[in-house]
Amino acid sequence: MNAKRPVVATVIGDPSGIGPEIVAKAWSKGRVHQTSRPVLIGCIESINAAVQQNNLGLKVRKVESVDELADSSSIIDVLDTGLLNPDSIVVGQSTAACGKASAAWLEQAKKMYDRGEIAAITLAPIDTVAMKMAGVLEQLVPTVPGNTYIMLVSGPLRIAHVTDHIPLRDVGHLLTIDLVEKAITVFDEALRKWGISNPLIGVSGFNPHAMGKEEDEQIAPAVTRAKAKGMNVVGPVSPDAVFRHCIDGHYDAVLAMYHDQGHIAVKTSNFSGNCVVELGSQHLLLSVGHGVAYDIVGQGVADFRMMESAMVTAGSFASGGRFPCDTFG
Amino acid sequence: MNAKRPVVATVIGDPSGIGPEIVAKAWSKGRVHQTSRPVLIGCIESINAAVQQNNLGLKVRKVESVDELADSSSIIDVLDTGLLNPDSIVVGQSTAACGKASAAWLEQAKKMYDRGEIAAITLAPIDTVAMKMAGVLEQLVPTVPGNTYIMLVSGPLRIAHVTDHIPLRDVGHLLTIDLVEKAITVFDEALRKWGISNPLIGVSGFNPHAMGKEEDEQIAPAVTRAKAKGMNVVGPVSPDAVFRHCIDGHYDAVLAMYHDQGHIAVKTSNFSGNCVVELGSQHLLLSVGHGVAYDIVGQGVADFRMMESAMVTAGSFASGGRFPCDTFG
Repeated sequence: MNAKRPVVATVIGDPSGIGPEIVAKAWSKGRVHQTSRPVLIGCIESINAAVQQNNLGLKVRKVESVDELADSSSIIDVLDTGLLNPDSIVVGQSTAACGKASAAWLEQAKKMYDRGEIAAITLAPIDTVAMKMAGVLEQLVPTVPGNTYIMLVSGPLRIAHVTDHIPLRDVGHLLTIDLVEKAITVFDEALRKWGISNPLIGVSGFNPHAMGKEEDEQIAPAVTRAKAKGMNVVGPVSPDAVFRHCIDGHYDAVLAMYHDQGHIAVKTSNFSGNCVVELGSQHLLLSVGHGVAYDIVGQGVADFRMMESAMVTAGSFASGGRFPCDTFG
Repeated sequence: MNAKRPVVATVIGDPSGIGPEIVAKAWSKGRVHQTSRPVLIGCIESINAAVQQNNLGLKVRKVESVDELADSSSIIDVLDTGLLNPDSIVVGQSTAACGKASAAWLEQAKKMYDRGEIAAITLAPIDTVAMKMAGVLEQLVPTVPGNTYIMLVSGPLRIAHVTDHIPLRDVGHLLTIDLVEKAITVFDEALRKWGISNPLIGVSGFNPHAMGKEEDEQIAPAVTRAKAKGMNVVGPVSPDAVFRHCIDGHYDAVLAMYHDQGHIAVKTSNFSGNCVVELGSQHLLLSVGHGVAYDIVGQGVADFRMMESAMVTAGSFASGGRFPCDTFG
């Protein structure tokens, strides 16, 4: 049984932020081990500090490869190549050293994934300012419409976004029948792969009450095409109703047209166990919807539940399991 | 005490829909009378039918003017000029006769307001299809950016919208410093008038994470100007965070840039007592955020709470009182 649980590597994020704290707290709860054999990638001194500051009573040890994992919720295994001098960490502040290190750790995780050593990656909060200072921000490949899509998972809400960090005034011009149809297809495949048979996807409109040019010319024809290919999809649905419908169980998932449709819905409805999944990527990569929270680092008050949700869900997805976030709501 | 409560006229909306049912149910609960002396404008036969179908046990009587009000939660007073033949009502369907009547009743209410006979108007759901059939849709003056603004009130959320039913791809081009500053000013005045001293308004951004051209060139300068005039305002705040912040008590109210920012937040967070207020209008007009619900007319299952909230809030606002929706959450 244990041997079948996939190995999931969690990158500790920027060590100046709350990443080490929430990763260590999540590890200590034991839920992470129910779906995966976890390992951390990062700076062992940061994890040691988080364990001590939060009185977690865990042993922290350095491992050289995933063959050495203790697979225990009381022993944290860390892959640490020593690339970051712990003296260069300034808690609560952006530094080039930490920005460079967090980018390198993510790169290390992706290479391990490509070599088949791990089955999924979770990423604790990184600091884009620090990465920019280090000149490595461009290594973070942005979500590209038509290639990869951000899915938010939060209680009953499973929301993929056709577009992500795009100026809102450009989104209407970007939407095409092909783009929307491809997003529906990738989303449908992901939902089936992760245990939802014949998922019913509600496709959001773009304009108020889903009445406008984009609905008539792009979204409705894309829905028609997807239906013709056997997908179980309805829409365009009024953007202000489709997320409530999903919470109420009318849909299994929602396809949003732009970033804030889905993000307003998730953050306002406030289910605690939300996490972020990149769809369409060559790596299975999960992260959290919040940042490094420099204002509360080291105070022991950071909420670990989104991080835990991402780590648990990564293990579940990597072994073809169901959406475990359902139980966090 | 009683004589000081303002007279509020409630237009029963399209009598083919759930308007008569939710208005009669709200009347029967007694909360409406705590803030106002209510009167209905519409077709007395529709109200009689709703009272009987829902076993409300209320007396329904026709009055000729607001001087005759019984001011009792067990006696419904209706102003009915007889302009709609009740035989022309087709329950659950759009008809020109009902569209024409509901427009005329709203017009009647506005004239009464202008003559000082009533202090506020609430409007049950109308049917724009029926009004279009009757050729009276243009009587419904649309919300015009810079003149009037839709405010949604729902539990702790008080959200005004700079723009309403505008194609989303046009909103970015419409936003100007003047437009945003004027919306802040009108909103600030309304909040103060209705009992929130020195209201803290969170101004939403337009783009993901409030980072873009509109924030830099229009929204931030408008916030700066409003601050310079003494208003208590912060922003632009990330659209996906500002509504959650407001629910958590960090702001008294939020100014949204477009329709779906506020409407997704309100409908997804699902406080039951939400209502809609038109700001900047010459009339104090409140309505509800849902439609005629033709699929459930006559079944006795329509939720009256938004209608009750609108009727209670109208009375409270007309007498300068606080936002009573707070207690409905």
